[in-house]
Amino acid sequence: MISSTANSRVKHVVQLREKGRERKKEGVFLAEGIRMFQETPVSRIRELYMEETLAERPQTEDFSEKIEACRQAGIFVETVSSEVMKKMADTMSPQGVLVVAEMFAYQPEELIREAVKRREQEGRDPLFLLLEDVQDPGNLGTMIRTAEGAGADGIFMTEGCVDVYNPKTIRSTMGSLYRMPFVCGASLLEVTALLKREKITTYAAHLKGEKFFHEVDYHGGSAFLIGNEGNGLREETADLADTYLKIPMEGKLESLNAAMAAGLLMYQSRYGGADSAWH
Amino acid sequence: MISSTANSRVKHVVQLREKGRERKKEGVFLAEGIRMFQETPVSRIRELYMEETLAERPQTEDFSEKIEACRQAGIFVETVSSEVMKKMADTMSPQGVLVVAEMFAYQPEELIREAVKRREQEGRDPLFLLLEDVQDPGNLGTMIRTAEGAGADGIFMTEGCVDVYNPKTIRSTMGSLYRMPFVCGASLLEVTALLKREKITTYAAHLKGEKFFHEVDYHGGSAFLIGNEGNGLREETADLADTYLKIPMEGKLESLNAAMAAGLLMYQSRYGGADSAWH
Repeated sequence: MISSTANSRVKHVVQLREKGRERKKEGVFLAEGIRMFQETPVSRIRELYMEETLAERPQTEDFSEKIEACRQAGIFVETVSSEVMKKMADTMSPQGVLVVAEMFAYQPEELIREAVKRREQEGRDPLFLLLEDVQDPGNLGTMIRTAEGAGADGIFMTEGCVDVYNPKTIRSTMGSLYRMPFVCGASLLEVTALLKREKITTYAAHLKGEKFFHEVDYHGGSAFLIGNEGNGLREETADLADTYLKIPMEGKLESLNAAMAAGLLMYQSRYGGADSAWH
Repeated sequence: MISSTANSRVKHVVQLREKGRERKKEGVFLAEGIRMFQETPVSRIRELYMEETLAERPQTEDFSEKIEACRQAGIFVETVSSEVMKKMADTMSPQGVLVVAEMFAYQPEELIREAVKRREQEGRDPLFLLLEDVQDPGNLGTMIRTAEGAGADGIFMTEGCVDVYNPKTIRSTMGSLYRMPFVCGASLLEVTALLKREKITTYAAHLKGEKFFHEVDYHGGSAFLIGNEGNGLREETADLADTYLKIPMEGKLESLNAAMAAGLLMYQSRYGGADSAWH
């Protein structure tokens, strides 16, 4: 058991939690809590830390089996004191389990190809989010979570977006991080070109928009450009859109929260329209 | 100028920032930043603090006029050092202005009566949010902001909701706090009875729902019950709904973020449906 916060592995985990650069360099991130641990495939886990109080309590069969599978796979599994877990974890009351896991690596072309295949085979319209410099970890997490709900095919994020492996982002995805494919550091110029080639329309919410979002026919597939919370889309990014649209707003409101706008657009494109159900 | 953080007024402001109980007792809250100051009616301001660096810089005419109006109204106006402003403000980089303002006091009956009047006179359907024990200040703020965007007529919150005057909530409303009427400590039993009498339908997103939210006809007016982030609605609260509905979710998602669900429902009830535009 590790009971000293000076232990080199503990220090390493703290570094991974605090520094996006460190995570990037090693290609790993931290997932906290029993639920996240259960959702992380064994093949992706590099290190597994359990708080001693948790290790001593009786566990569900699923949980014990997953721990055993990690051991069998030769993964580094270690018990730590409560003090050490507190030091390593991002939350004030950590849930007793923390894993160091390998980052995801999706290819833009592959995500788009898969979506186009579903359109051809199932008649299901592709749906993507293109995020420019989204800064709030909670917003980014909520967008990933909502994207899963709306059945999006993937999310592309510019280099300027907050780190998707930030512990706050991971928490607010509620597990969707594992299920929603995404690409970090994407070039929206390249992505929109790929989408155009596949006849997937890129939309931007923009003051110049003539149609309201609930009046647009989204058949064929949609990709929504969402900008930074404070500044919106850069002009040159908004120029990449095929179509501008507006979200109606009453009162004196200047804009909706970025995640809210993304959610309204995704759900509208999937379920809105006259014949509804499944575009 | 106040330059000591030990000043009794400074201590009082810090108390108001930190303690909901203190705010409630005095019936006041804090609004930070130039924008919030500009949006606060003079009649509602009790004290006004300006950071010295701000006071020295040239100001917009609007801003100077508002300050002058405060002085004319006999409001306590004081300059403070940067150190004192940091101590008083909730944000790491305060924007140089902080006001102590009087809380709002809306009556449930009045909000509903106003909405019904608009239905009769303008053909505009009433729209309300009924929030049970919403815990996250950011979520609450986002709901208030989105409610303004969707043109809601008011928000009713149970006693168990996070304090709407929490500085984090206020910030995330982006000014909507001043424009969206709300009632704290509401009895949802009483409110739903009032709504029923006016033929405004109460909806709850619920597993027992048979219709999807985008398949419902919202004509006549809607009120949406939204539950606690972790636990959803209490069974007895869900029982207050006239109709259950579902939000479709793909993947393995169990629920959407509470603010997201509220936003989708409000916008759908206002702009969804075949003849669209304005229900």
